[in-house]
Amino acid sequence: MSILVVGSVALDTVETPFGKRERALGGSATFFSFSASFFDRVNMVAVVGSDFPPDHIALLKSRGIDTRGLRVLDGKTFHWAGAYGYDMNTATTHSTCLNVFQNFKPEIPGEYRKSECVFLANIDPDLQMEVLRQIERPRLVACDTMNFWIEGKRDALLKLLGKVDVAILNEAEARQLTRQPNLVRAGRMIREWGPERVVIKKGEHGALLFGDGHIFAAPAYPMEEIVDPTGAGDTFAGGFMGHLSRAGNIEWNTMRQAVIYGSVMASFNVEDFSLDRMKTLTEKEIRDRYREFVPLSHFE
Amino acid sequence: MSILVVGSVALDTVETPFGKRERALGGSATFFSFSASFFDRVNMVAVVGSDFPPDHIALLKSRGIDTRGLRVLDGKTFHWAGAYGYDMNTATTHSTCLNVFQNFKPEIPGEYRKSECVFLANIDPDLQMEVLRQIERPRLVACDTMNFWIEGKRDALLKLLGKVDVAILNEAEARQLTRQPNLVRAGRMIREWGPERVVIKKGEHGALLFGDGHIFAAPAYPMEEIVDPTGAGDTFAGGFMGHLSRAGNIEWNTMRQAVIYGSVMASFNVEDFSLDRMKTLTEKEIRDRYREFVPLSHFE
Repeated sequence: MSILVVGSVALDTVETPFGKRERALGGSATFFSFSASFFDRVNMVAVVGSDFPPDHIALLKSRGIDTRGLRVLDGKTFHWAGAYGYDMNTATTHSTCLNVFQNFKPEIPGEYRKSECVFLANIDPDLQMEVLRQIERPRLVACDTMNFWIEGKRDALLKLLGKVDVAILNEAEARQLTRQPNLVRAGRMIREWGPERVVIKKGEHGALLFGDGHIFAAPAYPMEEIVDPTGAGDTFAGGFMGHLSRAGNIEWNTMRQAVIYGSVMASFNVEDFSLDRMKTLTEKEIRDRYREFVPLSHFE
Repeated sequence: MSILVVGSVALDTVETPFGKRERALGGSATFFSFSASFFDRVNMVAVVGSDFPPDHIALLKSRGIDTRGLRVLDGKTFHWAGAYGYDMNTATTHSTCLNVFQNFKPEIPGEYRKSECVFLANIDPDLQMEVLRQIERPRLVACDTMNFWIEGKRDALLKLLGKVDVAILNEAEARQLTRQPNLVRAGRMIREWGPERVVIKKGEHGALLFGDGHIFAAPAYPMEEIVDPTGAGDTFAGGFMGHLSRAGNIEWNTMRQAVIYGSVMASFNVEDFSLDRMKTLTEKEIRDRYREFVPLSHFE
């Protein structure tokens, strides 16, 4: 299959206890695409400004990512600046300049409209819905979101959830959306709003996958050092959707494997800033780390 | 083998969103013993006051727990009063009356001194060390602790850690003890202080087991409703030590199973107040829930 992703491409200025990077390549569509590109063909729809370094586009293309849907507009690229402290769980945002992303109206190129797998990264739920309308007959649609939309566009978000197969969100978002501290109940509630499968990402505590009468709990890969958590969630989603697209089915067991692949990819991404670790990643490293999850989580 | 536990027997007044119980049976040695009694013989050393209801002792005996080490002193039983809010993760303590527990000097009856498995529940680390000196040749010693001792008796605690095989503590305690937010690093640091195995309990997020070059991550049993979390940690330890004692070995795979049994027992305990759920628990229910952990955590 092929995977369409619609989201942001950004320049991030990030500071963590391990250092600082200025205007490094980031954005939800970037992290997702790069991660998914290890599994299947990726078509990207996003927008950048005229200041966007051509090297970054070349990097995406080097992974076989189709960037015909990446529009370059007059103006500046979306820029986020933030910092993480020692616990690495929450970012402090210093500034968010939407720039050309402010008026992003995703138009899906004709050649992308037959994409079978669709990932609606975190953008306005009305735009996510607009994207869906442009896709001919997707076999699998997943979406992400964030606190900003849960708070400000709850109704649009609930409407969108009625149209997707998989909702992928983090622990805090799941609790905020359902107004429910218990994650098991939160997962069930979100499923009742539409998505047949729900993934709740819990950072260092792994991820939960909810299906019809089934739950799968995956640990995170044990890491002593997280250099930069930026993009971990989208990288997870890239591995997750990538594996489903490559496998060509959404059976429960394939879904469980997909959660592990998501965790594998996220664990690599946080080993360095921006895409620095992902740039050198090999398929063998992915396979090896995937196999490490067996003794980590299985018992006899 | 047989398991010796030294800890508290208490009367707890607990309030949760599901109700309130006054002076219900509680205490670390109680929850541990009751849980471990489903796996092997348990010898209990603790102290209660003359107000302690004989029915409670009868209940412990009904599970085959040897209570010859339970001393009844003039005075009142240790009483804890606290409450849990909707998130169920942290208790608010309303009062702690140590009463006869204040001067608890554990004396190990002669017939207990050959116990092969020892669980040093959360008491003053100097007393935990004193208990150890009285045991002839234990094959497996595990200890628990709490924030109060980490803060006030750090040196004694570190000395104790040098003498135990397994340290079982929760996430917050592991972080506080090691002054390290990263749990993987915290687990490794604690191992360097002595214990060959370290278990970090993470409540709803499961537990991590650390060994020599190995980590095992167990999920928590997914629960939509937690009625009363009191005693979950000691109930976990009871299932964990109970399985090791019954199995008669401390191989890595037995340890992994033990973590699952710990999670199974804790998941039952939180289904009702005090020991109310554990009182009706059957071995078949334990086996069935243990098996439920396979599809919950395995992938192919």
